[in-house]
Amino acid sequence: MRNILIIGAGKSSASLIQYLLNKSSAEKLQLHIGDIHLEHADQIVAGHANAKTFRLDIFNSEERSLAIKKADLVISMLPASLHINVAKDCIEFGKHMVTASYISDEMQALDSQAKEKNLVFMNEIGVDPGIDHMSAMQAIDSIRAKGGKLMLFESFTGGLIAPESDNNLWNYKFTWNPRNVVLAGQGGAAKFIQEGTYKYIPYHKLFRRTEFLNINGSGKFEAYANRDSLKYRSVYGLDEIPTMYRGTIRKVGFSRAWNVFVQLGMTDDSYTIEESEHMSYRDFTNLFLAYSPTDSVELKLRSYLKIDQDDIMWDKLVELDLFSTQKTIGLKNATPAKMLQKILSDSWTLQATDKDMIIMHHKFGYELNGVKKQLESSLVVKGENQTFTAMAKTVGLPVAIAALKILNKEITTSGVQLPINKEVYEPILNELEQFDIRFIEKEVPYLGYNPEHVIG
Amino acid sequence: MRNILIIGAGKSSASLIQYLLNKSSAEKLQLHIGDIHLEHADQIVAGHANAKTFRLDIFNSEERSLAIKKADLVISMLPASLHINVAKDCIEFGKHMVTASYISDEMQALDSQAKEKNLVFMNEIGVDPGIDHMSAMQAIDSIRAKGGKLMLFESFTGGLIAPESDNNLWNYKFTWNPRNVVLAGQGGAAKFIQEGTYKYIPYHKLFRRTEFLNINGSGKFEAYANRDSLKYRSVYGLDEIPTMYRGTIRKVGFSRAWNVFVQLGMTDDSYTIEESEHMSYRDFTNLFLAYSPTDSVELKLRSYLKIDQDDIMWDKLVELDLFSTQKTIGLKNATPAKMLQKILSDSWTLQATDKDMIIMHHKFGYELNGVKKQLESSLVVKGENQTFTAMAKTVGLPVAIAALKILNKEITTSGVQLPINKEVYEPILNELEQFDIRFIEKEVPYLGYNPEHVIG
Repeated sequence: MRNILIIGAGKSSASLIQYLLNKSSAEKLQLHIGDIHLEHADQIVAGHANAKTFRLDIFNSEERSLAIKKADLVISMLPASLHINVAKDCIEFGKHMVTASYISDEMQALDSQAKEKNLVFMNEIGVDPGIDHMSAMQAIDSIRAKGGKLMLFESFTGGLIAPESDNNLWNYKFTWNPRNVVLAGQGGAAKFIQEGTYKYIPYHKLFRRTEFLNINGSGKFEAYANRDSLKYRSVYGLDEIPTMYRGTIRKVGFSRAWNVFVQLGMTDDSYTIEESEHMSYRDFTNLFLAYSPTDSVELKLRSYLKIDQDDIMWDKLVELDLFSTQKTIGLKNATPAKMLQKILSDSWTLQATDKDMIIMHHKFGYELNGVKKQLESSLVVKGENQTFTAMAKTVGLPVAIAALKILNKEITTSGVQLPINKEVYEPILNELEQFDIRFIEKEVPYLGYNPEHVIG
Repeated sequence: MRNILIIGAGKSSASLIQYLLNKSSAEKLQLHIGDIHLEHADQIVAGHANAKTFRLDIFNSEERSLAIKKADLVISMLPASLHINVAKDCIEFGKHMVTASYISDEMQALDSQAKEKNLVFMNEIGVDPGIDHMSAMQAIDSIRAKGGKLMLFESFTGGLIAPESDNNLWNYKFTWNPRNVVLAGQGGAAKFIQEGTYKYIPYHKLFRRTEFLNINGSGKFEAYANRDSLKYRSVYGLDEIPTMYRGTIRKVGFSRAWNVFVQLGMTDDSYTIEESEHMSYRDFTNLFLAYSPTDSVELKLRSYLKIDQDDIMWDKLVELDLFSTQKTIGLKNATPAKMLQKILSDSWTLQATDKDMIIMHHKFGYELNGVKKQLESSLVVKGENQTFTAMAKTVGLPVAIAALKILNKEITTSGVQLPINKEVYEPILNELEQFDIRFIEKEVPYLGYNPEHVIG
């Protein structure tokens, strides 16, 4: 038997565990699943003979190294900031490691040690980052193999609610960490490049500079720019590309309404509000409006942000009970962002029967034999239920597939890495198709920069 | 002779040195003026027998302590972050100290040691902070002495260009540190309280939530809120006051036009721009606008920020050469804020004959014998020339007067302090009147919260 240690058995590990369990007899795998909270893992494992769950405190270095010593490969599904001690133990005890997280500087620093010991440290192999890297590199490599020259690369991902569960005016529910949604886009200007010109969008304009996307069979979406669209420019070998843009997908109209929160200052997480606990939702809204002894919160907001009488955006705010005198925040010394998250959670929390959906969309513009061409590639994945969500599938399956291929010596290049090499992405993308995680490709006329795609 | 050591002889020390020199024979003062650059100090001293300038490197602890040992009192006009080593030496060698800077935590930590040695460490005794504290406390104490109860305190200060030198569309030039002007308001939401209700304004709305001020004889001004209007609430003994607001004064229309820079993202100092050095002013502006192969920077900007054809705000932008293809930035790896500062400095730098102006305006609302009353108090100070500027006078004179009064044991309370006690503010404000630094007081009907004072 080969021993796989899975550390962290939260929501995103359901499909990961299921995949490895299904293969466990044929592939002779024994799973050891360690976490502080085991309810979720026990439910997935359901007494399967080839898996054991055990209580693991990763801050206890003795417990941690004991568990890692016994494994042949370690999968860490911990929050990104907690990987590093696991990674150091993996170096010490000579174990391969797989994570779905961005490579931190600390992780990168282990590269030469991993190579010395011939260990594969595979990271960024979830959905975003993960499937985005693999699918992009597959298309880029294939265009290059034909002799094409890349001129444009745009890439968009969104974690959304599936159409059958979409029953609010925002066309949105929290399918992942709500805090990340509230804070999205903060921390500096968004940066990208269009036809050789650098562009910068400050946070307070981010949600008014969206781009529209038509995704085959799924309709019209919008996207706002990610913080640093150029982060992978060198990694993908695109240093000379004149247009590169990465964005986050939402249903049309979401960003324009979200902008109301940004303009008011409700997404600020840098200071706490006096007396937040007993404040009503209406009081919260009023914090960001001019004082008046007589005018209503509603009229002050409409006037301040120039929201027309018949603008559906208004109904989105009302739907959230933003003007309620009855509902109270109930959080002590909370930041505006935390108070907003509380308000949104009332309306945007998934119901038991709700299903989520992951959408990814790439555009590749290139020149081949003097002709400009454009390839578009789209992925739509829907969740099955609240356990095998689209997020759990698209994060967990690539992790699981990569882990098994490392054990089976099909992936052998050592060092701290992300899945951008053909050796890695090709077999994984192929196998993902068995799980209906499949990109639809379409050749379209080269659009290059099309002004109709940008809102003022 | 009593020895006064003045450390730092930049632009703000001209009036300070002149005041002490004029008193030096009668008061038996010998001034020792230490700085790295002595040109400015030598010019003010002009060979006066009672002053010596000398080259002082304050980072050289031997030089520094030698100079401090010989003094009876030390005035530090260094940047605020550099006071602390001087202060520690003053404690060690038992010297009084005066600064015009905000009390840092490090400075505050010296309080008990200063008291033990019976030393006066007077801080925040320039104009803002300084004259604002003194004039506010004088009015507040006088209202309280009559039996009045404070209900409203609003306080505004601005460093502006004098009307006779006001010859641009912005009605503004840099009369003080340009970098502080570009970064003003950043670092978190502005916070204040109006009739018992806390209010918060995010940075990107700060310059659209201005208040108008009518200042006796000087016309109409506007003010935007300072970061933390409540900073001195406890210090002034106003913990229960329902309305407290502090703001920065500009000529009407400045903030609305400045908001263009904020909206575009030009005031951001948190990241650097690629290839900033050879960029034209027009290229800089275009960084923050959507890409278009055909549309002009002008039209994109007008459309993005909805600036009407006949809006004078547009002419303000043109006046700064914001659309120039000829002028280049010339700064390597610069932040947007530094690039903007360069552009503004072309137009807003004082000419040799230009004069500056300081305006301060307080509103005190109070209840006396059941009647609501309001007192307004205004100060307007104009510079004489480029040496004895309004800024140099209003910063330097209170520092100099306080220093002499400490030497003469007219100010004796020891410890790290700011000028909020009658013992301190009364004689200083009285003496400032000899230099035409004089508040004009006016009783007006109680306005309380007047909606007409607030824009949008």
